[in-house]
Amino acid sequence: MKHLLSLEHLSAADMHAILKRVSAFKSRRADHARPLSGQTWAMIFSKSSTRTRVSFEVGIHELGGRPLFLNAGDIQLGRGEPIRDTARVLGRMVHGAVIRTYAQADVDEFARFSGIPTVNALTDEEHPCQILTDIYTFEERRGPITGKVVTFVGDGACNVPASWIWAAAKLGFELRIAAPPAYQPPAELLARAGGRVVCEADPLKAAAGADLLYTDVWVSMGREAEAEARLRELGAYQINAAVVQAAKPGALVMHCLPAYRGKEIDEATFEAHADTIFTQAENRLHVQKGILDWLVSV
Amino acid sequence: MKHLLSLEHLSAADMHAILKRVSAFKSRRADHARPLSGQTWAMIFSKSSTRTRVSFEVGIHELGGRPLFLNAGDIQLGRGEPIRDTARVLGRMVHGAVIRTYAQADVDEFARFSGIPTVNALTDEEHPCQILTDIYTFEERRGPITGKVVTFVGDGACNVPASWIWAAAKLGFELRIAAPPAYQPPAELLARAGGRVVCEADPLKAAAGADLLYTDVWVSMGREAEAEARLRELGAYQINAAVVQAAKPGALVMHCLPAYRGKEIDEATFEAHADTIFTQAENRLHVQKGILDWLVSV
Amino acid sequence: MKHLLSLEHLSAADMHAILKRVSAFKSRRADHARPLSGQTWAMIFSKSSTRTRVSFEVGIHELGGRPLFLNAGDIQLGRGEPIRDTARVLGRMVHGAVIRTYAQADVDEFARFSGIPTVNALTDEEHPCQILTDIYTFEERRGPITGKVVTFVGDGACNVPASWIWAAAKLGFELRIAAPPAYQPPAELLARAGGRVVCEADPLKAAAGADLLYTDVWVSMGREAEAEARLRELGAYQINAAVVQAAKPGALVMHCLPAYRGKEIDEATFEAHADTIFTQAENRLHVQKGILDWLVSV
Repeated sequence: MKHLLSLEHLSAADMHAILKRVSAFKSRRADHARPLSGQTWAMIFSKSSTRTRVSFEVGIHELGGRPLFLNAGDIQLGRGEPIRDTARVLGRMVHGAVIRTYAQADVDEFARFSGIPTVNALTDEEHPCQILTDIYTFEERRGPITGKVVTFVGDGACNVPASWIWAAAKLGFELRIAAPPAYQPPAELLARAGGRVVCEADPLKAAAGADLLYTDVWVSMGREAEAEARLRELGAYQINAAVVQAAKPGALVMHCLPAYRGKEIDEATFEAHADTIFTQAENRLHVQKGILDWLVSV
Repeated sequence: MKHLLSLEHLSAADMHAILKRVSAFKSRRADHARPLSGQTWAMIFSKSSTRTRVSFEVGIHELGGRPLFLNAGDIQLGRGEPIRDTARVLGRMVHGAVIRTYAQADVDEFARFSGIPTVNALTDEEHPCQILTDIYTFEERRGPITGKVVTFVGDGACNVPASWIWAAAKLGFELRIAAPPAYQPPAELLARAGGRVVCEADPLKAAAGADLLYTDVWVSMGREAEAEARLRELGAYQINAAVVQAAKPGALVMHCLPAYRGKEIDEATFEAHADTIFTQAENRLHVQKGILDWLVSV
Repeated sequence: MKHLLSLEHLSAADMHAILKRVSAFKSRRADHARPLSGQTWAMIFSKSSTRTRVSFEVGIHELGGRPLFLNAGDIQLGRGEPIRDTARVLGRMVHGAVIRTYAQADVDEFARFSGIPTVNALTDEEHPCQILTDIYTFEERRGPITGKVVTFVGDGACNVPASWIWAAAKLGFELRIAAPPAYQPPAELLARAGGRVVCEADPLKAAAGADLLYTDVWVSMGREAEAEARLRELGAYQINAAVVQAAKPGALVMHCLPAYRGKEIDEATFEAHADTIFTQAENRLHVQKGILDWLVSV
């Protein structure tokens, strides 16, 4: 039984096995294999979502399956009923599960008790589907990411940079985190992951010669109470002309959306790189098809 | 790229092209063409809905596509993210969009940036799917609407009469609006649309010799605060025996539902015309299939 | 037109006709008949739900149909619009309906006006799909239930025991209700149903020699206000080692979930009988397919 719970538990070979499936799904979208034919996949979401929800619903459908979207509140996942009970019930009714929730432990427990392939579609700890998509998008335009330099600018202590840290360690590229000291990734995580990760308070230094500049929203869902402090403390970590100028000529700029112009990225930089950014968004669909196909293949 | 954003932007030829497709979809419901085969259509709804939602979900499915229902609040359309970003993302993942929201400008902007066929399933300004359905239902029973007399009784200043005004101008029938002065359609709209539209404060005069009497709920969703004033001011504009008596013998009575007996229509008149009214509701399904088929045909 | 509104209106022959269909659906889940092919079935739910919702969505899909899940609040069933109007609209758009709501009268009225097969997926009065599943699960492991002894332990005055009472009367088994006096089923219901039903305040006496011990949650959705009183008054009606010891050796233990350990069942007894209990949950899927197939067959 394969799962995609975190990049920590994926080998480089696993990542390559997923990524090499994607091009066929992307190039022949209307006419490719249907490995989920006859299957129903539960999508259990604790947070509202556009990209994640739509890309998985469309992807499961195009692979021949039926997505069954469940608001986690409706089914009271982890509240009215222990997760191990919900998992044992759903595991007998559906063929796989895509879960977007808060605690990584909840997704892990669901996977253990359900007996069906389970995908982490976002937790507080990791966002593996997004980072696999980002890597695919990079390689689609620039070739193998191994040996390249990726600069993440913003809050380095949350799920997206955590998945980048594991990817850097597994695939062998340099990751630089440009963040204020209080927003640097936990030392424990860096030690556990290994790999070449540079933490740097100066965004221009971190961007110097980078192949990819990457940012994420500063105030994500559920953190609205801290908004003012975060906006103030992260204010100097905007991707804008100066940061792009510091990077390698032709460096890609990515954003996992939604974008707040004037905050983590300025309007001109966003629109100048809109084709990359919206291709990155679209690639969630194709890469997740690769993930699902990999999960159900022997 | 075709859209159905308003009747204002549809020619008479477009309307006829849509309506002539409907009978085949209605008569062979279980066995007709599947022009949306392999497609996913996003349904983005800001308001709860029975008829509009169910008719589009069933219609898209029966045309071979998959409807993906999204509560606009869940995806934060126009709030968390600019509509042009949501549109650019969804436009790369799904094949069409059906939107029910408040501002016409939001639907127009979505259509412009998404690059996919977009349907206005109700805005504050227009309700084109409903009025095309009403015209189909009229012509199914009485032949061509051109040259006939349609009397709308009630609040003439909202989306349903606005779409009737455009239809009258394009298809050449007489539209009479029976409404108190404060509920008459805006003079600007009447001037822009042209066509034969008679505004009349006396419902019996407006109904005289009409081929079709038409009403809509007085207090629609979101206007509950004004309920008392609206009920008082529209109280004399009920479709009842006296109004039906004034119309042409055998005149049709339609209601786009939900119906509040004793308010905009009395119980006896509603039930006497229930077969027309529920056929009108059912025809939403068939006409919308015609719309979708027209949108994706070359 | 067949409906499944309550076990009261089903004959023993009807029940057998449903149950005998189930094994084929269970044994060849990926490759059985598709009697709902081309159909859309509305699922109108007033309460949130995991098992009921997922089992019906998966079942309808696997029978070839498309489930259309509607939150009853969204469509304002029985509030914004009389049920007979909603039923007349939906009856012209969809091919069947599965309703989970409060008042039995609402489901009955929907069935009468919609003209489409209608399933009671839970009301305050009955839970026929659950009890048909329980009987199937019993017979799968122990053969015909006729002549056996079923002991329900807990609140005997609600929907699950009511459906058990009708099943006992129709299928000829002994039902014992172990409940405090205030939680015994209404005398009127017992008189109307007939059959062999024993009401007993002592759970050990009720369990003596039973073939099946059955329990349900003590505080179901919507009764949270009474929680403290119910927990106190039902406290002595837990299924645990002593109750199991009193039953026939090898007696089955069932629970319709969700389970609250330490309340209506203790942890050790629950986990010792988890295979039966989760098979019972899974069988909702297979039995409901049998119900749907029976509804649309001539």
